[in-house]
This record gives sequence, C-alpha cells and structure tokens, in this order.
Amino acid sequence: MTSQEIDSLTIEEKAALLSGADFWHTAALEGHGVPSIMMTDGPHGLRKQRGSGDHLGLGDSVPATCFPPAVAMGSSWDVDLIRRVGEAIGTEAVIEDVGVVLGPGVNIKRSPLCGRNFEYFSEDPIVAGVLGAAMVDGIQSRGVGASLKHFAVNNQETDRMRVSAEVDPRPLREIYLRAFGRVVTDARPWTVMCSYNRVNGVYASEDRWLLTTVLREEWGFDGVVVSDWGAVDDRVRALAAGLDLEMPGSRGVSTAQLLAAVADGSLDESALDVAAARVWALVERTGARAPVSGPLDVDAHHALAREAAGRSIVLLKNDGGLLPLSPDADIAVIGAFAADPRYQGAGSSMINPTRLDRAVDEIRAMATGSVTYAAGFDTAVDVAESDAARLLDEAVAAASGAEVAVVFLGLPARLESEGYDRDDVDLPANQLAVLQAVVDANSNTVVVLSNGGVVTLSFAANVPAILEGWLLGQAGGGATADVLFGVVNPSAKLTETIPLRFADSPAYLDFPGEFSRVRYGEGLFVGYRWYDARDLDVAHPFGHGLSYTTFEYGPASASTAAGGDVEVSLTVTNTGPVAGREIVQLYSSLPTATTQRPPRELKAFAAVPLEPGQTREVVLVVRRTDLAYWDVRVDSWVVEGGTYSFDVAASSRDVRSTVRVEVAGDPVAVPLSRTSSIGEVLADPAAGPILRAAMAEMMGDAPAAMMPEGVDLSKLLDSFPIGRVAMFGADVDPAMVDALLAARPSDDAET
Amino acid sequence: MTSQEIDSLTIEEKAALLSGADFWHTAALEGHGVPSIMMTDGPHGLRKQRGSGDHLGLGDSVPATCFPPAVAMGSSWDVDLIRRVGEAIGTEAVIEDVGVVLGPGVNIKRSPLCGRNFEYFSEDPIVAGVLGAAMVDGIQSRGVGASLKHFAVNNQETDRMRVSAEVDPRPLREIYLRAFGRVVTDARPWTVMCSYNRVNGVYASEDRWLLTTVLREEWGFDGVVVSDWGAVDDRVRALAAGLDLEMPGSRGVSTAQLLAAVADGSLDESALDVAAARVWALVERTGARAPVSGPLDVDAHHALAREAAGRSIVLLKNDGGLLPLSPDADIAVIGAFAADPRYQGAGSSMINPTRLDRAVDEIRAMATGSVTYAAGFDTAVDVAESDAARLLDEAVAAASGAEVAVVFLGLPARLESEGYDRDDVDLPANQLAVLQAVVDANSNTVVVLSNGGVVTLSFAANVPAILEGWLLGQAGGGATADVLFGVVNPSAKLTETIPLRFADSPAYLDFPGEFSRVRYGEGLFVGYRWYDARDLDVAHPFGHGLSYTTFEYGPASASTAAGGDVEVSLTVTNTGPVAGREIVQLYSSLPTATTQRPPRELKAFAAVPLEPGQTREVVLVVRRTDLAYWDVRVDSWVVEGGTYSFDVAASSRDVRSTVRVEVAGDPVAVPLSRTSSIGEVLADPAAGPILRAAMAEMMGDAPAAMMPEGVDLSKLLDSFPIGRVAMFGADVDPAMVDALLAARPSDDAET
Repeated sequence: MTSQEIDSLTIEEKAALLSGADFWHTAALEGHGVPSIMMTDGPHGLRKQRGSGDHLGLGDSVPATCFPPAVAMGSSWDVDLIRRVGEAIGTEAVIEDVGVVLGPGVNIKRSPLCGRNFEYFSEDPIVAGVLGAAMVDGIQSRGVGASLKHFAVNNQETDRMRVSAEVDPRPLREIYLRAFGRVVTDARPWTVMCSYNRVNGVYASEDRWLLTTVLREEWGFDGVVVSDWGAVDDRVRALAAGLDLEMPGSRGVSTAQLLAAVADGSLDESALDVAAARVWALVERTGARAPVSGPLDVDAHHALAREAAGRSIVLLKNDGGLLPLSPDADIAVIGAFAADPRYQGAGSSMINPTRLDRAVDEIRAMATGSVTYAAGFDTAVDVAESDAARLLDEAVAAASGAEVAVVFLGLPARLESEGYDRDDVDLPANQLAVLQAVVDANSNTVVVLSNGGVVTLSFAANVPAILEGWLLGQAGGGATADVLFGVVNPSAKLTETIPLRFADSPAYLDFPGEFSRVRYGEGLFVGYRWYDARDLDVAHPFGHGLSYTTFEYGPASASTAAGGDVEVSLTVTNTGPVAGREIVQLYSSLPTATTQRPPRELKAFAAVPLEPGQTREVVLVVRRTDLAYWDVRVDSWVVEGGTYSFDVAASSRDVRSTVRVEVAGDPVAVPLSRTSSIGEVLADPAAGPILRAAMAEMMGDAPAAMMPEGVDLSKLLDSFPIGRVAMFGADVDPAMVDALLAARPSDDAET
Repeated sequence: MTSQEIDSLTIEEKAALLSGADFWHTAALEGHGVPSIMMTDGPHGLRKQRGSGDHLGLGDSVPATCFPPAVAMGSSWDVDLIRRVGEAIGTEAVIEDVGVVLGPGVNIKRSPLCGRNFEYFSEDPIVAGVLGAAMVDGIQSRGVGASLKHFAVNNQETDRMRVSAEVDPRPLREIYLRAFGRVVTDARPWTVMCSYNRVNGVYASEDRWLLTTVLREEWGFDGVVVSDWGAVDDRVRALAAGLDLEMPGSRGVSTAQLLAAVADGSLDESALDVAAARVWALVERTGARAPVSGPLDVDAHHALAREAAGRSIVLLKNDGGLLPLSPDADIAVIGAFAADPRYQGAGSSMINPTRLDRAVDEIRAMATGSVTYAAGFDTAVDVAESDAARLLDEAVAAASGAEVAVVFLGLPARLESEGYDRDDVDLPANQLAVLQAVVDANSNTVVVLSNGGVVTLSFAANVPAILEGWLLGQAGGGATADVLFGVVNPSAKLTETIPLRFADSPAYLDFPGEFSRVRYGEGLFVGYRWYDARDLDVAHPFGHGLSYTTFEYGPASASTAAGGDVEVSLTVTNTGPVAGREIVQLYSSLPTATTQRPPRELKAFAAVPLEPGQTREVVLVVRRTDLAYWDVRVDSWVVEGGTYSFDVAASSRDVRSTVRVEVAGDPVAVPLSRTSSIGEVLADPAAGPILRAAMAEMMGDAPAAMMPEGVDLSKLLDSFPIGRVAMFGADVDPAMVDALLAARPSDDAET
C-alpha cells in the first residue's frame, strides 16, 4: 500500500478500517483489494471461535494444539523451544486462515494472586522479554502476526477495565516496560495490544506517551496497536494517542465518533490516514505468506507439545533420589488431576485441544509394575462428606499397597481465571488432607502439582519429591510420565519465587488496590528482588530447579565487547550419570551504586545440554543497555559507571562464582539551578571551587567546632538548596548565587 | 487589633510584619504599638540563643530546663505530665520574654532511621495527637504560643529542604495529617510551623491545600502559619498559599518581592491584610499574659524533669525480677554514658541545661552497697586499640567484683541529629563487645539504653534486664537511679515498635528516597500496622512495657454515646506487691471492612495509677471520627458501618479482652456514571433491578453454563464499566445506558 492508495480511500473507508468488522475480523474494503483478516486468541495455541464471538473463552472453537501456557513454557528458559512452538502455532494459524494470533503476554507477575499469571512468563523482565521475543519470532516466521500484550502494567484482573496502576518511573521503566521494549526491538511484532487498565491515571488505550512516545519513538515499533477487546473508552482520544485498530467492532458507534471529530475539527484527518495505512500494511503483511497444505499434522504438534511440557516441569525437591521411578515399581497414582487434567487456564486463551493426555494412562503405558489409581478427592465445590471420606480411604488403600505413591494435586479451574484474581495461594484443604493421609500410609510419595499461579508448599517437609507441573497443555500427561520415569531428565527452573508465606510477598499489602487504584508500593522490588532485598527465606528461589544429574561450574571470566556488552564465559560439566540440561543464570549488581538497586538482577541466561561427563563452554552476553537504570533527573536510561559484580548462578540463591567488570558510566548532565544543593554545587568541577572558597571565608571552622563531637556538619549543608541561602537570613546576594551557577560550563559530567 | 487598625498600616508595614526582623524576632511597628516578639526553639525546653542566631543548635543559649525529648515523654503516655511540662516550659518562656516556643513536633516516626525521631512522639497518630495537644495546652496556658510542627509529612532529614514526600491520600490523611488535625482541633495552637519538604511535589510552604484548605477550612485553625527557618522558597507563592510569617527574616529580600507582586498585580493586597492581621493578633495574644516574677525556680523544674524522666523509662525485660536493685547490692556501673550522659538530641532543640545529673552519681547517692564505675568504652570516633582494651578490661574487672552490673549503652551524639538520618539501627560494635565481656563476667547484668531512635537488641537474649531510657533530659541520671532502685516503678510503654531486624521495617526499601523524591510505599502500614499486617515477629511490640508489679484486667463492656463515640469500660487491678501505673490501650478493627484497614489500630488509651490490691474502673473513649477512613471516591472521611472489634490490650500484641460494637455507617453517595461497573450498577437500589432484568433477557444462563465448573462469571462482569458495553460489540444502545444511570435517585446510599 502506498500513500497514494491511502489517499484513494474516502474518510469513511479509512475510519472503517480502524474498527473491527465483527468480533474477530478487520473490515474489508472491497473496491480497494483490502481483504478482511481474522485475529484469534492465543497465546499458547489457537482459539478460533465458531459461531458468535466472545472474549471469555466461552464459545466453541476449532480444535487446535494446546501447548503449555507461558507459566510452564517460561520455566523451560528455552528460547529455541518456544520459537518452535511459535512456529507451530503460526502454522496452525495459516491452516485456519488466521492473520494475527493474540499473544504472547509478557506482563510481569507482580503478585501470585493475579488470575492470569498462567499466561505470563516471569516475575523478571529479561526472562519475559527474551522468551516473549522467541514466541513472536516463531509465530511471525510463518507469515502470521503476533500481538504483544497486554501493553502495559496489566498485572491483575481485579477491576482490570478501570484500575489505575500507580507506578513510579523507575519500576515502570526497569520492570514493567522492559520486557515489552525487549520484544519490540528484538522481534518486531506486527501488532501490540494495549491493555484495559489505566497507567498512572490514563487508560492505556488513550496514553499517547505509552503508545507513541515510548512504543514508536523510543522503541521503533512500526506495526499496528490494537485494543484489547473492549479496551477503548473514547475512540477519538484513543486514535489521537496512537491506537490504530479498535477491537471488536462497535457496530459503527466509534466510526461515527471519528467522523464527527474530524468534521468538528477536534481530530485531524491525518490521524486516520496514519492509522489506516498501518492497518492496511498489516493486512498486506499477512497476505504475503506461503500457504500451508493442510490438514494439521496433529501427531507432530502433539509431540512438540509433549516435548515442551517435558521441558517445563520443575523438579523442586528429590530427597534420596526417589525420582526417577523404576518402570517396574508398583505405583499408586492418586489425585483427580491424574485422570482429569488441569492443563490450561480459563478465559480467552482456553483452547479446544486436538487431543488430551491423561497422566494415569501415560504412566500405565510406561510402567511394567502395577499401577493403581484412586481419585482421592473431588474438585467440585460441593462434595458430600461421605463421598470425600470414601475417596480418601481409597487413596490410602492404594498408597498402602504400592511401593510409591504419585499424588496429583492442584488448583481447580474455578480458582484461577482470566477476569478475576485469587484470594489466597493455598492448595485446597481437602487435597492437603488426602496428601497427609497418603504420606502417613506411604512415605515414598511424589507430589505432582497442576496450578497456573504459585501455591505455597506447606506440605513440603513431609514429602521427599515434588514436581511443579504448572499447566502443561494437552500433552502434559505424557510429559509428566516422561519425567517420572526419567525418559526426560527435568531441566526446568522457576521463573518466579515460591515464598514460604504469602504474607512475605512484595505486593501483599497493596494488591489489588481499591476504588480502581492500585499503588505499586514495592517499587523496583518485584519477585526475587524483594525477597533478596528484605533478606527473607523462601520455599524455593527464583531460578531453582533440580535435575537427575549434577553439574559442575568452572571458573568464570569476563570481557567487554565493542559497544559495551559484557561477555561472561565459563564451562559447565555434567558430573552425573545421565544426560541433562543446565540453565545457567547471570546476575548483576553494582556495590557502589549511588542509586537504589536490587541486590541482584538477572541479566542473561543460557541452557546447556550435556551428556554424562561432557563439558561445554557457555558464553553469557549482558547487553550494556540492560545495565542501565532509569534516571528521573534526566528522563533517560543511564549506565552508572563502576565495578559491577556478575554472579554466575544455578539459581538466584545458588551463586557459583562471581566476576567483576569495570563498566564506564554514561554521561549525565543535570543542570545546576537554585534548587541544586550546596553539596551538588560543591561537587561541580566549575562552580565547586568558587563556592568552597566563599564558604571558607564566610564561616571558617567555627560552626563545626561548636557541634557535638563527630556531628557531621557537611551532611547538614550538603542538601541545602543553594538558592535558599539568602532566605535563611544569611547576607548573601542572590545575584552572587546566580553568578556562581553560571560558572558551570555546559559540557557533561560523568556519573 | 481591628480591621481599622490593619487599614491604618501602609503596605510596607504590612509586608514588614510578614517576615522576621532578624533570626528570632518578628518585626515591630513602632507607630502602631506593635512590639516585636521573640520565638525560640523547643520543643522540650527553651533554646533562647545569645548572640547571633542559627537553627542548628550551634550558638550559645540561655540556661533552661532540659525536659525529656518527645521520644521519652511519649513513652509515658501521660497527658497530665506532658501538660505540666508544657506549663513549665511556658513559664520559662515568660521569664525569658519569649512569645512563641517552637514545638511540639508531632510527625510520625516512619522509619527508625530518621535523625530527628527523638523530637517526635510516636509511630501512631492518636498517640502523637493526644500528647501533642497536651503539650500545646500546657505551653499556651501560660500565655505563650506553641508552634505545632513540622507541617507536614516531614519524616526524614535527608534532603529535607527539597525532598518530595510522595504519599497517597489515605495514608496522608489517616496517618500523617491525623495527629496535626487532632492537636489543632483540640488544643488550638497559636501557630503552626510548615515544614521544609514538599508533599506530593509541592513545597509545604507553598501548598494552599495544606495550609488553607485543610488547616484552616477543615480544621478551623485561626492562628499564624510560620515557616520552618528557611522553608520559604518563593515568598509570593507562600503567602498566597496561606503562609503568614516567614522566618527568619531575609534582610528585606522577600518583603520587596511581596511589594513587587502587589505592584504588578500578581498578588492581591488583601492577602497581606489577612496575614498581617494574623501576625498582629499573635503579638497581641502574647502581650496579654500575666508576668511571672523570676528568677526561674531551677530546683522545682529539675524535679519535674526528673519525674518526667522516670515516667519515660521503659522496662523492656526483667527476667527473674533482677530489677529493682536492692540499695545494699554491690553494683558495677559500666559505660561512658553513666558519667557523660546522652540526654538530648543534636540540632535546633539542643538546650543549655540548668543542671545535669550523672547516673553514676545518683546511683552512688542512693546505694548503701559499694558502687564502682568503669567507662568501658569511649564514644569518640578514634580510640587507640590499647585504650579500648584497657577500658574493656576495667569493665570486666568491675563487673566481676560486683553482685550486679548496670551497663549504660547508647548512640553517640554524632549518630543522630537533626539535619541527617542514621545509616543503620545498630548500637556501636565496640559497646556490644564490652557488654558481651561484662555478661561473660557477670550474668546479673542490667542494660540501660540512651538513644533517640530505635536500636535493635541483638544482645537481648544474653541479658536478664533492659531499660530503654531513650533521651531523658537533664534529670535522666536521677530518674534512672529511681527506676533501678524501685523508688519509681517503671510504667512507660513503647510508642514505636522495636523490630527484630531492620530489614523487617516498613520503609526499609524506600527511605530516604533518591533524587529528592521519597515514595511512601508502605501506605497505611506504618509501624505496628505493618508488623501486624505482615505477621512479623518483633523484638518488642508497640505498647509494650513492664512494671515491678502486675495488673489484672477485668471484663470489658462497651456502649455508644450520643454523637456516636464508643465508650469501653473495664476494671484494672494491681495484683502485685507495689504501687504501679498501667497504660491500658484500646485498638479497633472492622473484620467486615470493604476497604483496606490495618489489622489493629490504636484509638484510645488511659493510664491508671494503682496501689497494691487496688481496683479502678477505666473508661476509654473512642471518638467516632477516629473510626473513619478517608474515602477517595468522595474525598471525605467516612465511618464504615458494621460490627467493630475493640481490643482492650496491655500492648498491641497483648490483648486482654475484646468487645464488639455495632457502629452505624456514614452515608456515601458515589454518583453512578458510565465508568461505574456493572456490579456497582447492580448494587444500586434504583438502577440495579432494571439492569438485572435487561441482562437476563440478553444473556440468559448460557454463558455461565459454558464456563469451567465453578468459574465465577459474576466476578468477570462485576467490574465491567457499564459505559463500555457498547464498545465491546454488544448490541446495546448507549442511550439505553444513559437512561439506566438516570434511573438512580439522588438520595444517598449507606455504605
């Protein structure tokens, strides 16, 4: 499409392009060769609805492969795997003639209560950004658009269509926007979906700073900004802010509003030109792809879903090497989730799977010993006491008669969903009671968890082995069997902290806010940044995950590449008996930082597959830009100079070695003014010596001598605004202060 | 002064009244019979400087009685005592011809690091407000003005002249302004001192909302707003905001600015009229008092200072009844503070005392056994290693030869001062080493602490008895001896929590901020509100303090008085062997609260003196207004209706009984709008039924049936903005929504 082609559209046609034709389709412009394209929910599979549309996962949809949701795939830390899953989703989209898949979601897990955490990757922006970019790469490699969502600061479901996320500039930039920036700059998604909520009082859909200044001007986004479904409150303000495409269509209501605004002069028609050109370009992009000859290869995609699920299961605990199980063990499989799996979350992402594995079947298929099954509990809301007692008795009987009990616990679907948040982070009490009874009957108990959001592990001390399966998609049952029997050696690691107590969690006292306002009071200290800064014990730290083998880390060395990126190299050796895969993490800190910094921040990671005895070199690259903090004095990113520590670690609390690297600082030019403190002026190379001389003349040493021993007079004066001296009764001519401030040359000082 | 008299002033004379004539005096208007009055620093005594003025406690001043600073007197919870101390200060002011004493300070102790915490009463606004009002009452009863300070949200010294305290409306109202409001309405101070800092971006000195809307219009303040010394940044903006009197004088600079602003029309001359009339009225008020025939009765005021100090010492721990000491015990007094007391803080409040007790002398005077003294350590910054070793050896020798060791530890003056904050909350390591050596030599060790801000008690498990003496003023040495020997039975209780670890404290991660901005991220959860809400163990809870006797609480009963105040009555009995005084506390909570509330909030307290075996009735009155929260929807105080729990308690974590009282709620009329959620409209008595019928017709039960079992569709819909329905593709005429919202009658609904 050319600007000439845009000019050929009537204003009505341009306006029509900017709103959905229906729930899922863009408008076609018949006379101009602009077809309608379809968008469908993602992000871990295709939810292509049949019949009338809705955005709550209610209506029936075309069968599609249900890959593990982001909570699980994130735990793989596997860029290549996630890209391949993205490719597969892209392929399914092409087969189904879908132009844009609505995903991935890279919002930060601020609180474990968020009902939609299962759709997000991590509490860390680098993890979310790198993995989100891989997903976008994969989907778009098939000529299908991805939609990076939910932009931005959409970290809860409670009151999500109105709530204002009140967040300070540093956490906004360093935590909540960082993952989005990474995906946009690295993977160039074709669309970005704005979120429902407000950010510091402004609807994301109407936030020009967010949708234009940051997204397009700073990050270079060149695609279409689409609204989350129903996120547009005022169509005219939204367009002016940079929201191109309203979804779903509003039956002409908003189109009429745009036309009226142009007619009355409150909106410039050029805004419609720009947005219409973007939508048209998106339609053209999706038309350029190679067709895929269907039908869908269900088996191949199911196998990929199983591979992905196997990579996503976190071995939290494995005392005495209870796992892997021997195939000839007599096994009691207990827990309703083994037969009726919880494998995805509720809401718009809910997929109609092509197939569905049941763990108990897959265990039976692999086992050579006896496998008994007992449901143990019912996940329904109302269960008769007698039924519950019978289920428990059956579970105990099964456990008593087996060598090992594998107990499938988890959150019933009703407890977590898009659209609302959880009330607590506990597993249901009836399940915990069954577990305790089973453990009492058979101490060789493995717990397998199915949950989209973190649950606390109050039972952990009583069981020797725990697998955190999250929500594993349609092949999770097979993947669980693979890991239980060691066909797959678990390699996943946590991308979110599991706290000991919910009351320890960072947003405990200000989530989800009230009266449509939520204060992000923990600031920069989200996830492990909080637990580390507050020195709190946790159940399992961010980055933790065990293996059936062991890994040894060699000494690390570091170098600085051109452009300032830091490269840290080390060797990792598989010192155990089986092949495995180790996720190596790199955290930075700056002990001399003059600004507030979390004690440790993830900056890079790598996954290393290793045969027994094998050693490989790992190179972790830290982008210089990722070392920067957001400096509110100059409204920009600044890398503070100094000697950074880089911790090579197996988890955020299992540091294997530390290397130190001198990093040059960015220049920061904070202008001196009458608000500058005496300390700041004294530190200035030009004005400082003049002021020092003047102060010595005025005050001498007298005041210091009159203070209690050791009282630090300089501390008292350091923060005194220079322009206020005259107001404090001192005989200082304000003009003298102005002259002093003018002494400063305009060139930059380095931090 | 009449309005006619104001009219008789030239504009230059009016402007002159609004700025100090010098560092401590207001301007006189010779021809109009307006004398100059003097203001001096407070708040726990008079700092009337001799010679040239300063605001850092540097210059020499006239001797005055140094009463215990607020950190200590607050621990007495003794309204009558504090009023009497205020009277004494007022008397000293009259003798010295001082018109206004600059105090009390009722800022909230947000972080234990604040260098000026010693000048403040509590982490709780009711305690600070009630005690601050008593001090104002006392001072003003002598015809001397008090100056309530530092208004407002001045909770740190770091960058205090520029920092913006960024605080949300509820904590601003419910925590930080509440104490000021209490003092203004109850005690009507003649002046209020605005603070240096900014509040949410606006200098307190220029904040019309703060100085006029809240202070005068809401609270009815009718006195003079005076600037903290040097707090005026822009004199014209400050006057327009309601700051009457700039101190100190700026040698005519600001007067010229005011005149220029009136001349160029940017300031209305009437603003000068109003402020000048207030200053003139203040001068007249101070002129009306009865003269006191001097000189100062040094002995009487010293005795009062001793009584106040004795009431301020908190007995934190007393295992095995080690205290009180027998007069005939052989005592080793150890620690430099016993001979060279730390009894007040550094800065503007530093008083030149009329007399100064040394604890070691006072102990010697009371003891009949042997008393040895060893300094144990030197508080100087640089002490030779050999000197330190010798001091330690002497201390160990003294302890070994005694029946009991009394070790005086504390913070050297250089570690806490007005003007800067502390870096940590630990006692110096050299003192802790001496203590450990003493304890190793003699386990009968009593620790006596001298510190203005909280210190952690890492040593607590190793010593049987601890007295927290804070800073006790000039008679602290005698009072300490009184308590050690049981001449005074300790009755003080903590008005701030002593945490186990500094990292547990609420503002740990956002104090003191950076780049002149500090986020009050803990919101409402200041002090014990935080430790309770996060369920954190503490060293000693808010409200804790032991006695040499024991008290039994009888059952409590409650009634509601006219006007809605709640009265809780109970009996308290002294069940021990000696006379004592018990501080009974009353905390409220509302289990059904629909807004965020701390688990427990102090609402009333009373001190009960009891002879052995005596029983008295205590009546605790909770003002209805103190049950209110600040409702941001309607910008006003709201008492939520419901069954409140009132905990009668000996400390915030020692609840003796609970009574429940039904409290009627205030009406809250939140207007419905297109931003109102479906849930809010459904809850509306008028619009709700209409909407319910419409929804049933449109949706039927179909969607709910399609959700996973138990998924709560109503939760999804409850927060959906009613005005957004049409934008979500539904076939709803926006006019229909408007009609629905109009269905609501205008009368109020009750919360």
